[in-house]
Amino acid sequence: MKQPPRPPRPQSATRAFARASGAPAGDATARRGQAPRFERPDAFAAARREDSPGGEPIIREDEMDNELGVKKIGVVGCGVIGMSWTAYFLAKGFSVRATDPNPAAEARTREYVDNAWPLLERMGAAPGGKDRLFFSTDLIEAMDGVDFVQENGPERIDLKRTLFRDIANAIEPRVIVASSSSGIPVSDFQGASVHPERIVLGHPFNPPHVLPLVEVAGGKLTSPDVVDATVRFYARIGKKPVRMNREMKGHIANRIQAAVMREVLYLLAQDVASVEDLDIAIAHGPGMRWAILGQFLNADQGGGEGGIRHMMEHLGPAMEGWWADLGRNEHIAAEDIGLMERGVAKILERHDRAAIASARDSVLAQILQAKAAEDRLPY
Amino acid sequence: MKQPPRPPRPQSATRAFARASGAPAGDATARRGQAPRFERPDAFAAARREDSPGGEPIIREDEMDNELGVKKIGVVGCGVIGMSWTAYFLAKGFSVRATDPNPAAEARTREYVDNAWPLLERMGAAPGGKDRLFFSTDLIEAMDGVDFVQENGPERIDLKRTLFRDIANAIEPRVIVASSSSGIPVSDFQGASVHPERIVLGHPFNPPHVLPLVEVAGGKLTSPDVVDATVRFYARIGKKPVRMNREMKGHIANRIQAAVMREVLYLLAQDVASVEDLDIAIAHGPGMRWAILGQFLNADQGGGEGGIRHMMEHLGPAMEGWWADLGRNEHIAAEDIGLMERGVAKILERHDRAAIASARDSVLAQILQAKAAEDRLPY
Repeated sequence: MKQPPRPPRPQSATRAFARASGAPAGDATARRGQAPRFERPDAFAAARREDSPGGEPIIREDEMDNELGVKKIGVVGCGVIGMSWTAYFLAKGFSVRATDPNPAAEARTREYVDNAWPLLERMGAAPGGKDRLFFSTDLIEAMDGVDFVQENGPERIDLKRTLFRDIANAIEPRVIVASSSSGIPVSDFQGASVHPERIVLGHPFNPPHVLPLVEVAGGKLTSPDVVDATVRFYARIGKKPVRMNREMKGHIANRIQAAVMREVLYLLAQDVASVEDLDIAIAHGPGMRWAILGQFLNADQGGGEGGIRHMMEHLGPAMEGWWADLGRNEHIAAEDIGLMERGVAKILERHDRAAIASARDSVLAQILQAKAAEDRLPY
Repeated sequence: MKQPPRPPRPQSATRAFARASGAPAGDATARRGQAPRFERPDAFAAARREDSPGGEPIIREDEMDNELGVKKIGVVGCGVIGMSWTAYFLAKGFSVRATDPNPAAEARTREYVDNAWPLLERMGAAPGGKDRLFFSTDLIEAMDGVDFVQENGPERIDLKRTLFRDIANAIEPRVIVASSSSGIPVSDFQGASVHPERIVLGHPFNPPHVLPLVEVAGGKLTSPDVVDATVRFYARIGKKPVRMNREMKGHIANRIQAAVMREVLYLLAQDVASVEDLDIAIAHGPGMRWAILGQFLNADQGGGEGGIRHMMEHLGPAMEGWWADLGRNEHIAAEDIGLMERGVAKILERHDRAAIASARDSVLAQILQAKAAEDRLPY
């Protein structure tokens, strides 16, 4: 089975969020029947309660009732992606034990979480959740007692190899380590670690505390059960995991983005339209449909009663002509970067970058809520 | 100037919609100073009022106050795109005179408008607007007195040539004719018409009554003033036109879609993931960002303080690697269509196609409203 079981969609956005972050116990019990060999049945009972730094019990039972029994998540690397994951895990009621070699990362991470929190609260964040963050520059101390690790180190194979070796040595053998690697396959760096079978790709989409996608793929040494369990874990905590049957350079979404960037850059370099108009051609056109349905179901919709078959048979010859005509640029020239930068700068004359970021996240949250409240959508 | 002037974004979604469909007279007066040589100044006064089929004055002044003085729009071809344009123009308060050689098209179009109307009303449709539709199978009768024509004939050069010749003969020389041609450049069919300088591309994105994008491009014989006036007209009636500096096969958005389809089809054929997971990888990841910002501003956001320059310098080598690895399929094989169809069918086992369509349009309308209400977005 490639898809994790999906809970039924409730009618209200708020309820949908609540459900995504923790289905009723009955549901979880039913799922335990399908649990992989990698499960930790003992952890279910142990995970019921935990004391907060202040001594009060603050973990809600339903949040912790995932089949892996995860309650403490280790976050390794506190760049943009690590900080955003931290905010998300905290919002879902987990304790987070974060580490980064840079001591300044602690203040930066706490500030990031503070800034993200109002949005997360609108999306149903666990009350008081942002206080459950422990930080240490010492990886071994930070990883003490964690049940799941999300790695967000630099995108370099040599550094990843060392980092995974150190993480693997610091945790229990059965703890899953998911990598946010945006392009490097897990196979390229899992080999140096003890128990490489629990190392898996868990690549989010920026910003992870808002966008649901996580790409999950096993490396050559990863246990298929770990891949399955990881897919189910992410689905359980409100993410939308996809299961890759095998590793690919750039995974899925970054390849699709690269294809889009290649074409818009080609059209820009050919002076077909301005940076702003090329952006509008996505954001007020196909981009709006892609926020709801992927390319296949959109094509199916375009085919009317005949569905995707009619669409592809009807549009096929034209599409083949477009494929033949698409840009084939192989390199990003200094000139290309200049063109893009000048076009973007023209937009930023009128609109502040930080304001755009905040506006984007706010609209993203509204799109999430509109989608969650719509029970006729397929995914 | 490549961009039409954009009115300031008001705070409320409802007000934003009202503004998009007709700015106050003062605003329009200011704009007349920039009007192209192609304007019809006489039409401003003439366009103030019109009698409805029932005899009541129903055209609101502000709706009609566009620089072209358009009040009656001819819609040629009532397939899916023509019907959707009809619904949009009616919602914006215009009289529509539609034609299609098939007599059954009238009932189908009226039904389409009826079905689209509740959504259009949520988006601020002109009250009573849907009654302002006249239909005739006779092109000459239908085009009588129109001020603007939107053509939506079959996607075949020979048919387009004949159709444009007939349309051009049926209307006043100064009336602009915009083609919804989804891939064929205007240059390929404008030559057979009288006054080819007023024939222009106005390619919408399906469904045009919901999605704002319109791609505008002149053919070899089109007057640049007509291109400018068309861009401004669409902007004025609430669309988001982009101005192409020159014609391209597939225009802009269909090329981008073709690039996306090429890659997801490649990944499907390579068994990297299921149809559903490849759709999720868009709809819960980059697709959500693309609904708000295009590829360039998203890349700029990804680069933090360093913007798109930092992003492209940092990610450039990885992206070049992905470009080199992207699918290069040239043809859509029967086998590919089978794969897509089976994957889609699996989703449709659980979800009805018509229900998905309705859910998509409903969420699209909510996205439009969320974007209109957000005054910090750049476009």
